[in-house]
Order: sequence, then C-alpha cells, then structure tokens
Amino acid sequence: MSVRVAVAGASGYAGGELLRLLLAHPGVEIGALTGNSNAGQRLGSLQPHLVPLAERVLEPTTAEVLAGHDVVFLALPHGQSAAVAERLGPEVLVVDMGADHRLADAADWESFYGSPHAGTWPYGLPELPGGRAALEGSKRIAVPGCYPTAVSLALFPAYTAGLAAPEAVIVAASGTSGAGKAAKPHLLGSEVMGSMSPYGVGGTHRHTPEMIQNLSAAAGERVSVSFTPTLAPMPRGILATCTAKARPGVTAEAVRAAYEKAFADEPFVRLLPEGQWPATASVHGSNAVQIQVAYDGAAGRIIAISAIDNLTKGTAGGALQSMNIALGLDESTGLTTIGVAP
Amino acid sequence: MSVRVAVAGASGYAGGELLRLLLAHPGVEIGALTGNSNAGQRLGSLQPHLVPLAERVLEPTTAEVLAGHDVVFLALPHGQSAAVAERLGPEVLVVDMGADHRLADAADWESFYGSPHAGTWPYGLPELPGGRAALEGSKRIAVPGCYPTAVSLALFPAYTAGLAAPEAVIVAASGTSGAGKAAKPHLLGSEVMGSMSPYGVGGTHRHTPEMIQNLSAAAGERVSVSFTPTLAPMPRGILATCTAKARPGVTAEAVRAAYEKAFADEPFVRLLPEGQWPATASVHGSNAVQIQVAYDGAAGRIIAISAIDNLTKGTAGGALQSMNIALGLDESTGLTTIGVAP
Amino acid sequence: MSVRVAVAGASGYAGGELLRLLLAHPGVEIGALTGNSNAGQRLGSLQPHLVPLAERVLEPTTAEVLAGHDVVFLALPHGQSAAVAERLGPEVLVVDMGADHRLADAADWESFYGSPHAGTWPYGLPELPGGRAALEGSKRIAVPGCYPTAVSLALFPAYTAGLAAPEAVIVAASGTSGAGKAAKPHLLGSEVMGSMSPYGVGGTHRHTPEMIQNLSAAAGERVSVSFTPTLAPMPRGILATCTAKARPGVTAEAVRAAYEKAFADEPFVRLLPEGQWPATASVHGSNAVQIQVAYDGAAGRIIAISAIDNLTKGTAGGALQSMNIALGLDESTGLTTIGVAP
Amino acid sequence: MSVRVAVAGASGYAGGELLRLLLAHPGVEIGALTGNSNAGQRLGSLQPHLVPLAERVLEPTTAEVLAGHDVVFLALPHGQSAAVAERLGPEVLVVDMGADHRLADAADWESFYGSPHAGTWPYGLPELPGGRAALEGSKRIAVPGCYPTAVSLALFPAYTAGLAAPEAVIVAASGTSGAGKAAKPHLLGSEVMGSMSPYGVGGTHRHTPEMIQNLSAAAGERVSVSFTPTLAPMPRGILATCTAKARPGVTAEAVRAAYEKAFADEPFVRLLPEGQWPATASVHGSNAVQIQVAYDGAAGRIIAISAIDNLTKGTAGGALQSMNIALGLDESTGLTTIGVAP
Repeated sequence: MSVRVAVAGASGYAGGELLRLLLAHPGVEIGALTGNSNAGQRLGSLQPHLVPLAERVLEPTTAEVLAGHDVVFLALPHGQSAAVAERLGPEVLVVDMGADHRLADAADWESFYGSPHAGTWPYGLPELPGGRAALEGSKRIAVPGCYPTAVSLALFPAYTAGLAAPEAVIVAASGTSGAGKAAKPHLLGSEVMGSMSPYGVGGTHRHTPEMIQNLSAAAGERVSVSFTPTLAPMPRGILATCTAKARPGVTAEAVRAAYEKAFADEPFVRLLPEGQWPATASVHGSNAVQIQVAYDGAAGRIIAISAIDNLTKGTAGGALQSMNIALGLDESTGLTTIGVAP
Repeated sequence: MSVRVAVAGASGYAGGELLRLLLAHPGVEIGALTGNSNAGQRLGSLQPHLVPLAERVLEPTTAEVLAGHDVVFLALPHGQSAAVAERLGPEVLVVDMGADHRLADAADWESFYGSPHAGTWPYGLPELPGGRAALEGSKRIAVPGCYPTAVSLALFPAYTAGLAAPEAVIVAASGTSGAGKAAKPHLLGSEVMGSMSPYGVGGTHRHTPEMIQNLSAAAGERVSVSFTPTLAPMPRGILATCTAKARPGVTAEAVRAAYEKAFADEPFVRLLPEGQWPATASVHGSNAVQIQVAYDGAAGRIIAISAIDNLTKGTAGGALQSMNIALGLDESTGLTTIGVAP
Repeated sequence: MSVRVAVAGASGYAGGELLRLLLAHPGVEIGALTGNSNAGQRLGSLQPHLVPLAERVLEPTTAEVLAGHDVVFLALPHGQSAAVAERLGPEVLVVDMGADHRLADAADWESFYGSPHAGTWPYGLPELPGGRAALEGSKRIAVPGCYPTAVSLALFPAYTAGLAAPEAVIVAASGTSGAGKAAKPHLLGSEVMGSMSPYGVGGTHRHTPEMIQNLSAAAGERVSVSFTPTLAPMPRGILATCTAKARPGVTAEAVRAAYEKAFADEPFVRLLPEGQWPATASVHGSNAVQIQVAYDGAAGRIIAISAIDNLTKGTAGGALQSMNIALGLDESTGLTTIGVAP
Repeated sequence: MSVRVAVAGASGYAGGELLRLLLAHPGVEIGALTGNSNAGQRLGSLQPHLVPLAERVLEPTTAEVLAGHDVVFLALPHGQSAAVAERLGPEVLVVDMGADHRLADAADWESFYGSPHAGTWPYGLPELPGGRAALEGSKRIAVPGCYPTAVSLALFPAYTAGLAAPEAVIVAASGTSGAGKAAKPHLLGSEVMGSMSPYGVGGTHRHTPEMIQNLSAAAGERVSVSFTPTLAPMPRGILATCTAKARPGVTAEAVRAAYEKAFADEPFVRLLPEGQWPATASVHGSNAVQIQVAYDGAAGRIIAISAIDNLTKGTAGGALQSMNIALGLDESTGLTTIGVAP
C-alpha cells in the first residue's frame, strides 16, 4: 500500500529536499510536482541532483493539479498556503511547510507577518510534550520553522523540568539555504563565503514568536526570548546556542538528568556523551538532532546547543516524520540519523 | 540472507563513508571495525555522523579480528593491503580500497609507489568495457583510485569509439577529503578555504599510470596522459576536465552519439542533456557520475567533464557496487543516484 | 627615523599577519624573525604570501637573536612570553601578543591557564576608557585576546553609560585561523568546511575572565559573562553577538546615543548607520571594527554586534596600533579601515 | 601633484576593488563615482568595506559627471565603454576595464560578443613582450580579461623561447566574484559552496580569442587554445593550469631557464622556487602573480600554473599598474605583492 503524494513548490530548496527524501520512502508514490514561475520546466534543470525525477515537468500550482492525492505538501512562500489548502478536501492530509498555520496567537501572526491569520494546525514537532498525540490521525500539519525546531528541542527539557527561569537568550547560525533559492545580492556566493553576519536582530525575526510559543508551553509561563539569527558560510545546517537563566539550586547533574530523560526514547535526537559537542556537519542531510548541554555556575545559566540540518529535520525531514505519524506509519520510515560527513 | 562484513580502517574518511553506505544496505551485517592508532576508541568520537554505530569500539587490524566474515573491506594506506589480504582465506571476498592491486604493470607500481608490486586483482570499475564480467564471482577486487574513476569514465567512450587520438590532457579538482584525515598543515581549513592549488604536477601523481592503463585499454594503443590534480576548497567531490585530441573527421554529433551509446544502460552514469554541465554538488553523497561532452572544432579537441563524489563513487560507493556484482546482488543495492544538494 | 623590530614566532598566523602589516608600515625596519621548530627554514616556504620576505631565514627564539631591536613582538604560545621578556632590557618595547600579561587577577590566571601568573602589563585596547593613556610611553604591552577585543568594544558603551545590568550573554563565531596553524584533525578543511560547532562552552574558554575584567571595569561592578565561542567555516573574522540585560527605563534612543558618543572620535571603530549590520567580510584584512546595536524591548536586552578580523584588529593590527601609541607615532600608521571584500 | 580620478561602475566588484586600491594610492584624488541602477545610493550601503568612502553618493554615468577628471576608469558591462569613452576628450586617460577594446580582430569581437567592434586600444599587460612600451604616455588603455591575464603570463615565456608547439590546453578555476555582483540563481552561496562546475566549455568563453591573440603574438604563429573555465567555491582568485605541447628536444632545464629569464625583472611576477606551487590564497588582495612550471617528459608537455587575484592583478590592480605606466609614475605605486593570507 502506497500513498500518493503531491508537492507544491518543487523547485525550491524545501521542495527539493522533500523530494530527495520521498524518493527513499518505501510507502509513497510521487505524484504531481508544481511550481509557479518554473511551471513547464524539467525538474532536471532545476534540481539536477534528483536524477530519477530529471524528466518530470513542473505543473502550475492549482487545486486541479493537486487534486487526487492522499497527501499534499505545500512548500510555498508564507501567506500562500491557506488559499491552496482550502480547496483541498478534508480527507486529504495537507502538510504546510510554510509559516501560515504555526502560530496560535492571531495578533502575533499579524504583527510579524502583516497579513490576516489563517488559523492554527497541529504542530509538527513530535518530540515536544504531547507532540505525537497531536499529530496522530491529523489531516492538517503545520511544519515548524527551522530555527524553532533547533531551539525548542534544545531548551524545552530545561523548562519542563523546572530548571530554567523564563529568560532565554539564543544566537543561531544558519546555512544559506535557509534563505531560499530566490537570487538576492546579499546571498551571492561572493558575499557569503568567508563571512558571518547577523540579520533580524532585536526580536524582529519571524521565528521569535514561535519559539516563545513553544518554550512558554513547556515552562507553563511566558518565556521571554532574545533571538539573534546569523548567516554562516555553509549551504546547510543550523547551530543553535541557547542559554537560559538557571533557577536557584540548579546543578549540572540535574540538568544532565533532565536532558537524558527528555530524549531517552527519541529516535532522532541524540544527546551527546559529556565532553562532545554538536557540529552541523555531523547531521548534514539527516533527520538527526545532536544536542549537548552544560551548566555554567559562574554565569548562572544553562547552555544547550543543538545542531540540525535546516532542510531536513528543520523542514522536509520534520514534515515527513510528522506525515508518518499522521498516517500511522513507523515514524522513522524514509528517514535516517546518519549524516553525510565530512 | 545477509553477508557479514568487516571494515579495516574504519576511522578514516574512506572507511567512514563505507560504513555510512553499509548502514543503508539491506543485505549486509556490519561486523568487526578496526583501526590502528585509534583501536580502543568509540566510533562515536571518531565518526560522529554515524549515530547507529556510536557505541561500537574499534579493534586492532589483525587477521584474527578480521576472520569469520564473508566480506572484508580494506581501507588502509597503500602498501598495507597485501599483507592483510594474504592472511584472509580464498573464500573471503576481499575488497581493497587502497592502491596495492590496481596496476597490472609491476614496473609502473614500483616506480610510482616505491615498494614491491603486490599483484593485480580484478578492477572494480564495472562501467569500463568488460568491467562487469571481470567482477562477477570474483573473491578479490581492486577498487580504482578516485581520479581514475572520474577520468576513465569521462574519456573511455571517446577511445572505444575511435574518436580520440592517444593524447589526453586532464586537469581535475578534488575536495580535501581525498587527501585523507591525517592532520597536515597544508590541509588545515585556514589554508584551504578560499584557495585553489595544484599538486603532483608533471605526471608525478600516483593515479597517472592507472589512468594510462584504463585509457590505453580502451584505445587499443598507448595513450599519453598529462594529468594535473588541484585541491579545491570543498570537503568532497571531483570535477575532472578531460580533453583529448580529436581524430580527423570527428564531428560533434559523432561524439554525442558515442557517449549516449556508452552510457545508455548504466545505472549510475548520467550523460546530461546538451547545454547542462556537471557540478559536484549534484552528486554529493551519491554514487552518481554526471558527464557532459563537447567537441571544440577550433582547437581540435574533445572535452569530456565528469563530476563524482570522491568518497562515494570514487571510493566507498564504487567498492560497494563492485561487491554487489561479485556477490550476485543487484548492482544498485544500497546505493543511490540522488545527491544531497544544495 | 625608523624603529628596528623583531618578531618572535614569525611562522604562525599571528606572526605572519604582523609581518604583513609591518611591511606596509613606513616607520619600521624588520629585523630578526624567529621560530622554534621552523628555525632554519626560508619564510617563503612558510608564509608564501609575504613575497618581499621570501628569502629571509628563521632564527631560533633566543635572547641573543632578539637583542638589539627597539621593539620585540612576541607571538608565542601562552606561558612562553614571560621568560623571553625577562631577558629583554627595560628600554626595549616588548609587545606580548600572547595571553601571559593580560589578566590582573593572578588567581584567575592560574585557574584558567594552570601555570604561575607572570604579571600584568598595560592593556593594548586603546578604545577602552583610559586605554590610550595607559599605553603612551609604555615599554610593555599586553595585546588583548581576539574575542575580548570584539566583545569589549561591543559592550563597554552600554556599561559606561549605565544602561546595562551586569549580566551579559555572548556568542561569538570565529574563523579557523584563531585556532592557530598547528595541524589538528578537527581543524582540517574537510572537517570545518560546511560546519559550525561550539567549543569551550560553559565559561571554560580562557578569554572569559578577560572579558569579565574589561566589562567590570566599564560597569564599575562585577559583570557576569556567559560566553560561547563557535568555530565558523571561514579562515578569518569574528562576529560577536553580545547581549546584556537592560536596566529599567532604557530606550532605543539612549542606547544609540551612548554608542555614538563612545565611538565618535575613534579612527578604527565604525558604528554603522541604523539598519545596516556588520559582516566579517567587510573588515577582512583591516583594523576596522564594525558595530551595530539594538534594543529589544520585548526581551529587555541590549544587543550589540561587532565584526573584526581576528588576526588584524584582533591580534596583529591591535598590537601595531598599540605600538604606535607607545612610540608616540600616529595611531593609524600602517593600518587601514578598508577591508578586502568580497 | 595628484591626478583626479573618476570611476564609472563604482558599485560592482571591479569598481569596488579599484576604489580599495585607489584609496591607498598616494598620487590620486578620488573624484566622481557613478552607477546606473544604484545612482543616488550611499557607497557605504553598497561597498561596506570601503569605510572612508561610506558617505559618498553614486552619481549617474554621464559624460557630464565624468568630465573634469585626469583619469576615468570604466568598469562597465561589455559593449558600454565605447559610447562613454567617445565623449571624453583625447587628453583624458581612459582606462577600460571592460572587454570592448581588447581584441584586434573585429571579426573575433563580433563573433564572440555579437555587437560591432569598438576598436583596439593599447593592451594593459605590461609583462608581455613590448607591453610597457605600448602603454607609456598612452591616453587609452584596454585592461585585459582576468583569465587572459593569468594564462598569458603563464604561457608566453614558453612561446617566446620557442619551446612550445602552437597547441595549448588550459583549464582555469575562478572565484565567484569573476561572475560579477548581479544576483543570479547559480551564483547563490547555497549553489556554489561545496561545488565545482565548468561553464563556457568548448571554446565558447569570450576570453578565448584574447588568449589566442596574446599567445600567437608571443609564438609568432597562430596558437590553438582549448580553454575550459570552472567556477570554484571561493570569492576571489584564479588558478590557471596551462599546458602546451613541447617542441622536440625540450628539457626541464631549458624550460626553467626561459621562465627565469622572462620574469627576472618583473615587480609583480614571482616564479616560485622549484618544488613550490602557487595557491590563490597567497595572492589574495595583491597584485602578485605566482607562477611555477614543469616539464612532463612522458606526456611531452610543458605545464605552467599561475595564481592571481582575479579582482586585483586580474582587473583593478592591473588597471592601476597600467595607469601608473601611462602617467609616468612608478609602476608599483599603490600596489603590493603581499597577499592577505590565510
């Protein structure tokens, strides 16, 4: 038995990564592939690494083209998913890889995205408390943002265990694919190679409210988040350095124990042995999350650092993992913890 | 039915890549893993991307440790394979990923490697004329060098079709993993990032006689090869720019036809559509070979360019492909043509 | 009039960068160049970019070789400067580019470096309050660490202006040259390209007490610092993301005004126009510091971000700037604010 | 005495590099800076590394704006220089950094550029035989292409000395800045990092006839050139691997002697000691050319390899060097052989 899958936005980085993973998934059949400005082009010219799909031709992103599939993935710019999703029936599993259905707070959405709130769908981060239950059998999935995936996984155990005060400071470095495939001068190779730079400083990045939402849910109180994203000279990967003020009485042992407990049964999260730190290269192309945590007694802070592949666990792999859960498949089907390194 | 596999040299880049692929191969069971200076260490500290093997401990590379396996891969420095192989029985499939058994000419070996010739084993490049037949049922396989893989595949069709004169000029760029994991100053990230540099210029690189051997076999006459390798600022990948003097009367159509014919049924070689050129990113982590060819009438040369992943098709993937053939498995088992890009 | 300069440790990255700058300094004559394991080698084989010095031969690092110079720069591993400096007369200007004489607190030194404290020399960061006065006419200079340079310049205005509470959280990304030229496996190009990773997490990095020293002096009270350094896939550059808890009543305007005032007359520090953020590429090879600052009211933090070249302003350029001041030369002699970009 | 200089095309990579160098040139005053789509913008937002010019505002590229300068540099897209130059008086030194006036053969120009030939100006490669004489006192200079600079310097000594047959095969790797600052998808950092790819294969690259022109002049007969450019994952630098069929009787000693003689008095070309090979990092940001040559007797070819910075010696530095000669200044004024490495 195989489910028939369509991908809207197959020419971009998220769509391409999803197709890479779907090609290795034994339970799916790849149906329609759509693009907008690229409709009519061969996939081989747009995604030359996807050799088995080289002769497939992109169709326009319309309800007609997307009809007749069991699962539809939407890898569209934010603000475009809701209109497409509305025209897909309630029996279709719709997986929104964009931002439209992630935030529960409509005011937050409107403040950060500047358009009407489309609604809130079950959130595709199974490792969060209650995360799997929300996805089982669901017909709508909101795939988390890449930064919120890395950050929420790194910090929620400190909050669920009551070890951290509601004051987080996060600096994350992302590979350039996180900025998408649209050609912009500051994303040219000449500009990014050999350079680190910040952007969206001061709480203005759109992933900030999503982090606050997740960490606050874990803490049971509003968590303030200072988030600074930076652009790193690499194609893929996120390294999130997440610190939270420690509550009085916290010890290194208590922190370690909380993290060991949180991830004991997780198929994709690896809490590294003490003394070993994550590197984005280790998770390149995989759905793995590598995490390490430390307690800095002098500064009174817990420091949790996670490495993910922004396109895999951070986008397309996370989407597929959630699809597996929603469809009742084994959660790891078609996914791996093995990175492509060096 | 599953074959039991040992890997000698599991801590290096070639060994690590082989393990990455073996973990995805449905017909193998991973047995002993050995190292030399690293014996006794956890693989998780040496190859942090191989999460499922993180708790495995490296053993010393001895005949006792390697005994009792159906297949033994030798990912050892050149000159060390023969001694190990001699102590493995004739019923064991021994796959030498080093250079020891590649060259048929003992004098060439001794001139380029400075030690006695260990012998010649069936050559693991199935795409060459007669390549598969030599491997079927064999118990010994010499895995080709990474550069000879890229170069031989790019140029042999021009020779078998009689289109090229025996005079090849080749310049190839390799990622740094081709130089191995031993820490040397000129391989530091600080030195290689932002820099291109040649090495082994003037016919002195050890892969030169191997290329001459392969191309001469295809041509039916001795082919002279000017080969210049360069080190490129990337971890993986080889881009081989291979030119050969064209014989009189050659046309672009004849060249294209020869290449289409040569690769028509190859599972891993993709001759790109006209106008599209290979990029190493497209084959990152895959066993694919992407090739394009042009005829430059003004200069009177055929230019064939191939891109491979030096660690996959260039080493570990090629080794696994040959193992599959030797064991009578489907040649593509555990291998993919899909690259991890961007 | 030209001063005669010797460089101990001329084969490393700090020594090489210093020589690059000295070659463009109109007031110096380059005298003895020393190395340890490299003594006897031509500089051209070790520092091929320093063409005018290619035929110079490294001498051993002894007091005899270093005698007879007006200025001696020590680019030695930490713990080695004191013994050399003791044998140089009090009339010689000794500039220690290592860590030995940076910390005022002997217990801090011994805790972080594990050896006896060598003493405290005037600190070579002229932009700090009172910084220039401490250097004028001095015969001993302790060059700051690269991270403390980037961090102290980014945050001290918030402290001197009384805007920040004594609680700083800092995450910095450094190019690999900061880790030196000694060949270590984790610094191989194959390992660092495409990868971000942290190290020295949890307050264990040796530059932490130096940051605390500088920020506490600016604040007039003990500042706690959570510092996480990360290794970025680039040869040079530091991007320091520095956040501090804001005191009640702080406004964005007050923050901006404090930074404008602090850097109004600085020749090398450029506070960027609002809306523009630093990038390490912009300061590549220059002595410039590019800084931007924001106030995140929701998180209650000031975020100041600086970009420097770790080898130039972070080490050799900073050393030369301090030498200029000590000798009574124009502070900018031989230095530039112009980066080599892209 | 200082000459007043205007730069048309100040927002691009060539223009930016020229300004970086002009800022360090003691004999020039920087006058008008022009752009097209960027007219009206502050240079600080377009070229953030040029701190001293941050507040300068780009003007439109018109004859009025460019009037009243002693020297006008044209860093414009090909095909646009001639119209601008016509409106500048014969007393103005016009330095065309574009392609318009490089080729002597109008048919070649029209075939490769598809527009009418604008004419031929003195060619700005002083190191070629007769090169300096052609530039002295000239009021028009055609700056060579970056690839022809690297290739012509590497191979002309073999031709002037009569050692090479008229059959050259050249493969060159260039950093991405050679492709300019216009945002195109294949030049995104995500695409180029970790990837090598060819382009303009088969003699179609526009720099091919320029190489043929230069090498044929040196040889005294028509030289055929097979030229393949490749894009390398670095911002700057060209490594040109240039091979030529050796004439009968050639020896390694004769080759070495020819190269030593050709470059004995050149201020910017460094023939490396035997055994040392060029690396682009060594010439980063400098006007130096590093060259090494070998004779491969088995293949019967001379292999000469050069490394330049494509933006400096390959464009803006070469332009400035030629300007110095034309104005009667010391040829090296404002230029350096010292690279910024690592």
